[in-house]
Formats: sequence, structure tokens, C-alpha cells
Amino acid sequence: MEKRIAVLPGDGIGPEVTSAAVKVLEVIARRFHHSFEFVHGSIGGNAVDTHGTPLPDETIALCEKSDAVLLGAVGGPKWDQNPAETRPEKGLLKIRKHFGLFANIRPVKAVPALLHRSPLKEELVKNVDLVIVRELTGGLYFGEPSKRDHDSAVDTLVYTRTEIERIVRSAFDLARMRRNKVTSVDKANVLQSSRLWREVVEEVRAGYPDVEVEHQLVDSAAMKLITQPEAFDVIVTENMFGDILSDEASVITGSLGLLPSASIRTDGFGLYEPVHGSAPDVAGKGLANPAAAMLSAAMMLRQSFGMEEEAAAIECAVQTVYEEGHCTADLAGPDVRPMSTEEWTARVAEEV
Amino acid sequence: MEKRIAVLPGDGIGPEVTSAAVKVLEVIARRFHHSFEFVHGSIGGNAVDTHGTPLPDETIALCEKSDAVLLGAVGGPKWDQNPAETRPEKGLLKIRKHFGLFANIRPVKAVPALLHRSPLKEELVKNVDLVIVRELTGGLYFGEPSKRDHDSAVDTLVYTRTEIERIVRSAFDLARMRRNKVTSVDKANVLQSSRLWREVVEEVRAGYPDVEVEHQLVDSAAMKLITQPEAFDVIVTENMFGDILSDEASVITGSLGLLPSASIRTDGFGLYEPVHGSAPDVAGKGLANPAAAMLSAAMMLRQSFGMEEEAAAIECAVQTVYEEGHCTADLAGPDVRPMSTEEWTARVAEEV
Ligand SMILES: CC(C)[C@H](C(=O)O)[C@@H](O)C(=O)O
Ligand SMILES: CC(C)[C@H](C(=O)O)[C@@H](O)C(=O)O
Repeated sequence: MEKRIAVLPGDGIGPEVTSAAVKVLEVIARRFHHSFEFVHGSIGGNAVDTHGTPLPDETIALCEKSDAVLLGAVGGPKWDQNPAETRPEKGLLKIRKHFGLFANIRPVKAVPALLHRSPLKEELVKNVDLVIVRELTGGLYFGEPSKRDHDSAVDTLVYTRTEIERIVRSAFDLARMRRNKVTSVDKANVLQSSRLWREVVEEVRAGYPDVEVEHQLVDSAAMKLITQPEAFDVIVTENMFGDILSDEASVITGSLGLLPSASIRTDGFGLYEPVHGSAPDVAGKGLANPAAAMLSAAMMLRQSFGMEEEAAAIECAVQTVYEEGHCTADLAGPDVRPMSTEEWTARVAEEV
Repeated sequence: MEKRIAVLPGDGIGPEVTSAAVKVLEVIARRFHHSFEFVHGSIGGNAVDTHGTPLPDETIALCEKSDAVLLGAVGGPKWDQNPAETRPEKGLLKIRKHFGLFANIRPVKAVPALLHRSPLKEELVKNVDLVIVRELTGGLYFGEPSKRDHDSAVDTLVYTRTEIERIVRSAFDLARMRRNKVTSVDKANVLQSSRLWREVVEEVRAGYPDVEVEHQLVDSAAMKLITQPEAFDVIVTENMFGDILSDEASVITGSLGLLPSASIRTDGFGLYEPVHGSAPDVAGKGLANPAAAMLSAAMMLRQSFGMEEEAAAIECAVQTVYEEGHCTADLAGPDVRPMSTEEWTARVAEEV
């Protein structure tokens, strides 16, 4: 197949990890006889520096002509004091909204070789295998009015039935490919939007009699992610709750540095990025762990291009290299010599 | 001193645990020569059953004539399908708002005897000693519009400078009595209300040069509560973030069954209640753990009545009884005979 992939390295360690992922994708292309064209664009803080905006029109145009987007990370202390419109994160929010990427998919799966790094007791997390499906283009992030004056400020949490229905359906469809369980998280005892949310979940479930459904309040979900993380299969929730819960979930197994994410819509187009941030303190030193970027590339192959075998090849290679005991500095124990980003990437590429 | 205490047992295990706390308060009154008058009122599901509303006017009148309120817990499956206005939780929201109880204080401290029950590795939590200061009468919980029709729903997150300032000041004042550190949690990279929040924190801190201040985004705070909970002293945040983070924090040390809370305003009047819920499944069986209710009563003595010594007497007694190895069913290991709620209460009362 021929595919054009927009690569947006972003800030901090973004360039290192995306270039590692691209190397692995090139190996995949050779081995499976595909042709991947990589086109590069800017986003985030560096785009603010060069174009005065965190999401230049050129970048949007480039993504529009591509089949999927691979993103590194955005942000850094340099731009933290900027006004809202020229903050790196705004680039991320805009690209999500512009392309209608309403479903943020974040799998969290325990990696046996990394369990010792979990802050939780190993017996609680060793079988964790969950996916958070977060609504990404609605709610408090985009509702109007969103404004302030000297004495007060207001943000608006608004959802339409249509917005809720499409994300809830994504979650049910995903559950069918997994363990057939959906946990819908809301705050229906307080919020009107949550009551509508719960109603729509109840309607949608009628079409999925094979899927088990559970409603959970966001506060108890925040507890249960810690006390019984293995109880979850697919979690679906609105934008802000999803932001909080998916970050919480990302640290429970100790494998944050390995977690990929996808932001997708229904036609297959999507943006793929590591869950970790831009880590400006370690940028450019060969210390970055490119595993999450590679696994994000694997998600892209599977979800946007339907290349199941190719995706699995990357996932297996990453796992094999970990099992051999090779890792980058972030995961190295006291008596392991860590590999540089490049060495580790080369090892994975070989394995693929 | 003479004090009148409104006791609102509520639903589920509420009556058992408040009556245990009242017993201990009676012992305190005798030992320290105070006179406590206890007046009982209804709230929650049982109030819906008897009065058609989760917060009857009689209850409000009773609290208005009291110096503080001791609450058990509200809610249960029986009322879960009720419309918003006759849900037990609405009683809680209304009493908070009616009495202007804007500051919800939730201490979380590791209890050595219970560390083995923590889902986290013991070395990460053994020194946890933090307090969450949650804004309780503003934000998404009370903002207007809050409404829905068939196709959409809206909730409003609104804060005024005054509302933010008073809760932030409470947090700084509290930090001064502790380790002089405040972590303010917001989502300033997305929300206007969070930008105002952060601005106000920056203004207030000028008056507290001795207090160290840190801003944290709610998503990273949700991670750090798990990965480095000992790094926190006082956490201050808005209503909804506080709801989620305080429940998350309540499970990290394994001592949820022991956690008290206070909902207060500036003149000393306050409502005190256990963090745990109404646990309808174990209600009426003598299985309930009254420790959190007793510790909430201790908070009441300290914060509403200025009775430091009396508060400490309860806290010490509870701790001593745990160290002796006595506990209720919820905390009993496989080879410990648990005490009933009454037996355990009697042991604590003796100790006081
Ligand atoms: C950077 C920020 C705006 C973003 C969000 O809140 O959505 C991030 O936290 C995420 O989860 O992708
Ligand atoms: C019962 C509910 C309305 C309440 C809240 O969300 O404030 C509870 O979760 C709490 O934290 O006291």
C-alpha cells in the first residue's frame, strides 16, 4: 500500500522519538512491501517561535493531504507564560478540533518486565489490560461561553446527544473486540450533562446485548483505578474526566514511557502520539525512550491503515527487546547499562 | 463549655457510626467537664421517605440553632433512580450551599498499622501526610445555566475572585500550621476559570512569603498522587477537581475507613462527616467501622469548638485501639477476630 504520513515532531524529545518511530516504519515498509511517504510539519512551541502560532496553516494543509499524523510531543517551560493563543498545547487542541478527532484511545497494559516500576503492589496490576476512550472535541474544552474579566471567569460544559452517541458507540465497538465490558464514567448525581450521557449509554447498550455495561461516578472511578485496576476493560468518558483518569491510569502499571495513544474519527484518519510529554530536561541527550512513539506508530498501522500484521511486528519487536533486558536510561535499574535512543531504536529495527 | 451538636445520621451505616461517635463525645464531655446537647435531624434517603425531600426545613432549622453538625452518610440503591431533587445527595449539596460551607478539608495520613492494606507499595506511602482543601460551594456543582433538553445538556463552571480568594486563604493558613507548602491544582492550560484561579493564588501568596507554592495541572496531580504522594502537604483546588482528587487520595494509604472530613466556613460553624459512604450492604449488622465518624467528631471539637486537647484524646484513643490489634470487620485480616461496631466503640470509649 501507498500511504502518506504527516510527521509533527513538536518540542523537547518529540523530534528524537518521532525520528525513531519513522526508522522503524521504514523497516516495516521494506519488509511488507509498502511505500510510506513522510512529510514533516511543525506544531507546538517551535511553531510559535517560527510561525507565531502553535498550529500553522501549512501544517494543517500537510495533514489534510496525509493519511494519518504521527506526533511527538508539545510544550516546554519556554512557552509556559505565553497567552492562551500562543501556548504549545493550543496547537494540540486546534488540530483535534479541526480534524474532528473525537475519540482519544489510550490502552494501558501491564508489561511483565516493567512491573517492578509500578507504584502499586504487583499483584494488583499484573493483569491490567484496559483502554480509556475519552471524548476529545467537546465538553469544557470547547464549550462557549469561555471567558473572564477581572472578577470572574466561566467555562461551559456542553454536550449534544450526537456527540455522546458517537463516542459511546466507539467504546462499545472496541469492547466487542476485547472482553465485552464497558464502564461509563460520569457525575450523574450532580451534572445535567452526565445525566444525558448516562441516558445515551443506556440507549446505545440496547444494540449491544452481548456487552456488559457498568456506570461509575468519576470520583469512585478514580478510586477503583487504584484499588481494582484489573476490573476494567473499556472505560468511556467525557473530555475532562478522561483527561484526569487517563493520566491517572497511565502511571499504575509503571509503564508510562511505553504508552501510545490514538485520536481518531470514524473514517480511519487519525493522529497518533505517545502519552508521555516533551520532557525538555532530557531533550537532545540520547536519553529519550522512543518506545511509546513506536507503539503509537503501530496503532496507526492498525487503526488507520488496517495493517494488523505490521502493527503486531512492531509491538512484538519492542517487547522482545525489553525481554532481552535492553532499555533506555529512563527504565534502567542500578546494574543495567542503558542504551541510547539510537542504539535502542537500531535494536528494535533489527528485530522487526 | 456548652455546645449544641446537630446529629444527622442519614442512610445505611450512617446511624450506627454517628451513634458510636456520639458515645465517644459523651465520654469526652464527662472527662473534660463540657456539656454537649445532641439534637437529631433527618437527611438523605430516609428524609425523602418521611418528608418527601432530602433536606427538610426542620433539619435546616435544627442546624441553624446548633454550633456544629455531625453527619453520617447519605444514599443507597433505593433512591438511585429518583429525579435530581429527591436524590439523597441533593440533601448534602443543599446543606453545604445553605450554610455557605465553602471549604472541604480532608486530611489523609498514613496509619502504620494499616499500611499493609494500601494498594501502593508501602515505601511510597508510609510518610503520607497531606490535606486536600476543596472548594465546596462553587464551580460546576452550582453554576447556572445547568439544564438539559432532549438533544443537549449544559453545566456551567463559574468562579468569582472572592470565592477563589477565600478558599485559597484557608489553604495558606492551614499550610502555616503544617509544613508550609501549598500545591494549587487547576487546568490553566485549558480553562479560563483556572487561569483566574492561578492568578488569585499568585496574589494571595504575596501575603505568605513563608509558604512554598506550586501550581500543578489536574492531570499531572492525578498521576503524582500515586507516584509521589509524600510530596504533598496542602492541596487546594476547585470543587469538581477536588471531588475526584480527594477520592483518589483517600485510597492510597489503605485507610479509607478511617478518614474524616470537615466542611466549614470562616466563623467556626461546620459540618463533619466520614469520607466513606453509606455502605447499604453492611448496614445494621454491627459490621460498620465507626473510626472515621469518631475522627470527624474530633475534627469538630478542634475546628468548631477550639478543643484541641479533647480532639487529640479521641485521635489517640482510636490509634491506641488499632495498635492493640483491635478492629472492625472491614479491616480484619484472616487470623484476627473482628470486633462488632459496639464492642469497638466501647473499647475506644474506655480508652478516652
Ligand atoms: C496538553 C493538554 C491540553 C492536553 C489535554 O488536556 O487534553 C493533554 O493533557 C492531553 O491529555 O493530551
Ligand atoms: C454525593 C456527592 C454529591 C458528593 C460530591 O460530589 O460532592 C460526594 O462525592 C462528596 O465528595 O462529598
